Amino acid sequence: MMIGKPIATSESHHQAINKRIGLAVFASDALSSVAYAPGEILLVLMLAGTAYTYLSIPIAAAIIVMLLILTISYRQTIFAYPSGGGAYIVARDNIGEIPAQVAGAALLTDYILTVAVSISSGFENVAATFPFIKSYETELAVVTVLFMMVMNLRGVKESGKVFAVPTYFFLGTMVVTLVVGFFRYATGSLPRMEYPAEELAALQHNAMTLGLLLVLRAFSSGCTALTGVEAISNGITAFKEPKSRNAASTMLAMSLLIVFIFGGITILTNLMGVLPRDHDPAVIPYISALLFGPGVVTSLITIGIMLILIMAANTSFADFPRLCALQAGDGFLPRQLTIQGSRLVFSWGIVALSISAITLIVIFNAHTSSLIPLYAIGVFLSFTLSQFGMVKRWLRIGKIKVGKEISVRNAHGDLDVLKHDKQWRLKLIINAVGGVMSLIVMCVFAVTKFTEGAWITVILIPTLVFIFFRIHVHYKSVAKTLSLSGRPVHPERRPIKTIALIDDIHAGTVQLIEFVMSMGGDYEAVHLDNDTAKTERILAKWNERMGDTGHELKIIPAPYRDLTEPVVNYVQNILDGSENGFVHVVLAQIIMDSWAEQALHSNTSIAFKLALQHMDRVVVTDVSYPLHFVNSK
Amino acid sequence: MMIGKPIATSESHHQAINKRIGLAVFASDALSSVAYAPGEILLVLMLAGTAYTYLSIPIAAAIIVMLLILTISYRQTIFAYPSGGGAYIVARDNIGEIPAQVAGAALLTDYILTVAVSISSGFENVAATFPFIKSYETELAVVTVLFMMVMNLRGVKESGKVFAVPTYFFLGTMVVTLVVGFFRYATGSLPRMEYPAEELAALQHNAMTLGLLLVLRAFSSGCTALTGVEAISNGITAFKEPKSRNAASTMLAMSLLIVFIFGGITILTNLMGVLPRDHDPAVIPYISALLFGPGVVTSLITIGIMLILIMAANTSFADFPRLCALQAGDGFLPRQLTIQGSRLVFSWGIVALSISAITLIVIFNAHTSSLIPLYAIGVFLSFTLSQFGMVKRWLRIGKIKVGKEISVRNAHGDLDVLKHDKQWRLKLIINAVGGVMSLIVMCVFAVTKFTEGAWITVILIPTLVFIFFRIHVHYKSVAKTLSLSGRPVHPERRPIKTIALIDDIHAGTVQLIEFVMSMGGDYEAVHLDNDTAKTERILAKWNERMGDTGHELKIIPAPYRDLTEPVVNYVQNILDGSENGFVHVVLAQIIMDSWAEQALHSNTSIAFKLALQHMDRVVVTDVSYPLHFVNSK
Repeated sequence: MMIGKPIATSESHHQAINKRIGLAVFASDALSSVAYAPGEILLVLMLAGTAYTYLSIPIAAAIIVMLLILTISYRQTIFAYPSGGGAYIVARDNIGEIPAQVAGAALLTDYILTVAVSISSGFENVAATFPFIKSYETELAVVTVLFMMVMNLRGVKESGKVFAVPTYFFLGTMVVTLVVGFFRYATGSLPRMEYPAEELAALQHNAMTLGLLLVLRAFSSGCTALTGVEAISNGITAFKEPKSRNAASTMLAMSLLIVFIFGGITILTNLMGVLPRDHDPAVIPYISALLFGPGVVTSLITIGIMLILIMAANTSFADFPRLCALQAGDGFLPRQLTIQGSRLVFSWGIVALSISAITLIVIFNAHTSSLIPLYAIGVFLSFTLSQFGMVKRWLRIGKIKVGKEISVRNAHGDLDVLKHDKQWRLKLIINAVGGVMSLIVMCVFAVTKFTEGAWITVILIPTLVFIFFRIHVHYKSVAKTLSLSGRPVHPERRPIKTIALIDDIHAGTVQLIEFVMSMGGDYEAVHLDNDTAKTERILAKWNERMGDTGHELKIIPAPYRDLTEPVVNYVQNILDGSENGFVHVVLAQIIMDSWAEQALHSNTSIAFKLALQHMDRVVVTDVSYPLHFVNSK
Repeated sequence: MMIGKPIATSESHHQAINKRIGLAVFASDALSSVAYAPGEILLVLMLAGTAYTYLSIPIAAAIIVMLLILTISYRQTIFAYPSGGGAYIVARDNIGEIPAQVAGAALLTDYILTVAVSISSGFENVAATFPFIKSYETELAVVTVLFMMVMNLRGVKESGKVFAVPTYFFLGTMVVTLVVGFFRYATGSLPRMEYPAEELAALQHNAMTLGLLLVLRAFSSGCTALTGVEAISNGITAFKEPKSRNAASTMLAMSLLIVFIFGGITILTNLMGVLPRDHDPAVIPYISALLFGPGVVTSLITIGIMLILIMAANTSFADFPRLCALQAGDGFLPRQLTIQGSRLVFSWGIVALSISAITLIVIFNAHTSSLIPLYAIGVFLSFTLSQFGMVKRWLRIGKIKVGKEISVRNAHGDLDVLKHDKQWRLKLIINAVGGVMSLIVMCVFAVTKFTEGAWITVILIPTLVFIFFRIHVHYKSVAKTLSLSGRPVHPERRPIKTIALIDDIHAGTVQLIEFVMSMGGDYEAVHLDNDTAKTERILAKWNERMGDTGHELKIIPAPYRDLTEPVVNYVQNILDGSENGFVHVVLAQIIMDSWAEQALHSNTSIAFKLALQHMDRVVVTDVSYPLHFVNSK
């Protein structure tokens, strides 16, 4: 129950899925990064000329080692947190509030960047096959995000099966590409890309000499292949029983698929001498065009890449509002966001995510390579915190004696039951290795990409954490101030003075007076005089029509045209004359059917309310009069 | 009293000024157009090559004739409308609602364009003397408008004397320039601009052959010199007695100054062979640089031009909200705008004007020549309507016998007293000539500049008029629906059912219950159950702390997390059971000191209010609980 009640929409499409569907639902983010990660490595290496592109193979191998370590680490999290163990929850329950909020900030930025990077890369891949869209990439990316926003706002009814189609279509195209590629290599018929001399000269910059820094930069860029590998650990509850076991198997399958595709594409690009063009990391379309010609097959492969990237972006549309709700529940984001079932909340999250992603796309011209430096820091920061959270947990478990269990109250007061585990030392070491590796990658990334854009994330995450804590302090102060603990409560009747504010004499006024009469107590009818002629007209109308009330209309001068100040002063005078009495100000408000019509009316009641609501012991009531037009002309 | 009560701020700086100050206050708009009008004529003629620039002299002469006709016409308006006779009022009182709203739309667009054109031209003139600002014109223009917006929002305390300084400084620099120029011409020492051959080639386009259309286009462009000549007729009440006579003399003085400066600068540009550069109509800085060298004197003259243009733009910041108030008073703009003394209204007008002007500046890159085609249509349309309004008035006066007078009720029900005038035929002819001339100029302008941008104004003005009438129809329907005429009114006490909605049990709830108790009637305390655990906690708290009330807490199930629907249904049930009873829903709202803090709270009361306010016989009261923090940590 640690992640709170599951959201209705997520329930509907995540419920009791098998491993095959689970892979489709959760693997799109991780699998889709093959669309840009191999190209990103090459783009960095090409800074030192095309002679060193073969280094992409050992770099990819290092990344695959990193992936396998993370997979083993995360499988432990999956078994330890059968109800879902995202970085935020693991950090919160084991390390504390600050690391948890850092993880939250990292993940929120990560989700935004997943959308921006995936959609940008999608159109770069499409442009590699269909060059005529090249100059419209930014526009197309913005329109696509807007389209996804609208679809998600309307509430897409996805079932796991809908996810399965594009994911398995993409996997199918990748298997075909790799099998055909390696078969032709084995038979010696693998084609090799021959770039015209002038294009080759333009592609390689020779701007830098090869060195450790450049290799590390290339490695950092390639680590974007690892984004999304944690997705399954968040969604364990969606699997069929035995949940943890099924989720863990799916995670392993996903990682092996990444090894196969990411590794295979990296080797094929080298064997075929394919280079990314136009500073865009897309390479698979060129491999395909060379293997199958520029026809139907290449078009289908390109569509597959676009589809898997849209799926990847779409996962953020579910994850972003869900994490917001979680953080809001803990009091670090506006509390309204916890109302999980409400359309409004998800709308807020979806719109915020879309606007942020569109802003990034526009600023960086939908250019994946410019967005990548902002991307992976958040991902690896959350990996690090999640793994160290697990280390802390194994340390605690290590102290529990055989057959015993302890209940730990986490930072937010929820109970977490820990049981003895004889393998705790081994598991601790595995998570520690995963955490240290993630930390190293994050540092390498932050240093090598700092000036290229990583500084933005380095500033943004602490800023977000600061805001989260400001919000938290506010909620704590409010709760303390409102608390009745230790205060005896004896609600009692207090004197009350009712004032009916009369703006004009019309059907709405009659309803106002009838309401005030119906409350039963005495009242005073008051008009603010800011226009002598109008006041005389209103007095005459009152005396003519409101004679039945037996009340005079009292006139308060309001010479400076500002109507709120005289009312505030009048009310203050009454308050001063009564120790604990209420003043109840009642006014009429005409209600139109539409916002546009409402805006045409003076809505002075809002101004009165804003002025009076800060006064103690003052209550304002708008007697709304919904207008039903006699006729429309 | 036709223009309504004067605005406090305008009163302060317009009160009882003499002719000297009056000229400074009202002439800046008209005088400042000399900064771009002569150059605009030349820019058009240069389309056919520099050989025909001498035609600017006869064109300027035609414009001066036009100016003199308008001056005579407007002097008649000044005597006929001693309390202020802007085009809107004259059209409204004499022709009817539609022409009045057309004039209103024309004037509002005119005010926006005055800001955009004046500030753009200001920086073009400055750039002619200080070329390093050339590439920052748009940015500087935007910043200047924002600065003027802030100054006007804060409420600039201008006295007439503050206006006098820049206006007379500008007039002084112009007199010096013209006197020195013509003196040196008389003595044969007037320098002549010699452009290098390649610059001359770039300046002239030879794109068109000279023809009637081009001459008419040049004439149209030059007619921008006439923008602002009507300003005095709007501000007659500001003058010392005899108001009309003083205003009329000031108008004549202003027109003669325009003749002198506009005519003089046009002749000097021809004598000195000065041409506008970079497609910008600035010429005075070049004349000055040639006459006085590029030193202190030229800098001062440039500053003078910039200052008068800022003054011109600033008049729109007073006129725009004032016209909005006038149209709102007649029910063609949102009625809130009539609350003339309120800061909020002027703020609205000032912000709307600034945003519109900035939008134009950004779209047209602060390029005066691109803005001009949008400009003069509105100006001449309002001249036309104003003059024909006067013609209609003279026709009416012609029917009045000697010594008699008649009271005419205008379109808006106000009284207008007309007296016999034996010269009515002559005056009619004068205004008719002015009106016909204005109409012709407007048509020439619309035709010759249509494709360059005039089409925008041609579409915009009817659109605005349509919106004005839609607003008007709405107000009439509302008034009819709310009217009590012919309906007997007997307000009576009706049954009332009070519901206290309890969200949680805290200090604000205690105040809510005390208020409900204090009203005296019975009530029901209700909690919406959307979370069983929370509901149980609240029930326990209620029973523990609210025992004194003697009331049970009633629980309404709200299983779908949407809280408004169960409340609406519950209330509807009560309404159905009572023929004419009220349902009074009372809830607590915690009030924070700042908007930012308030936004962190769920403000469900707003959602309830929005849902319930459209129901007849339902009244919602928020018992606000202003929070005074116990401590800030």
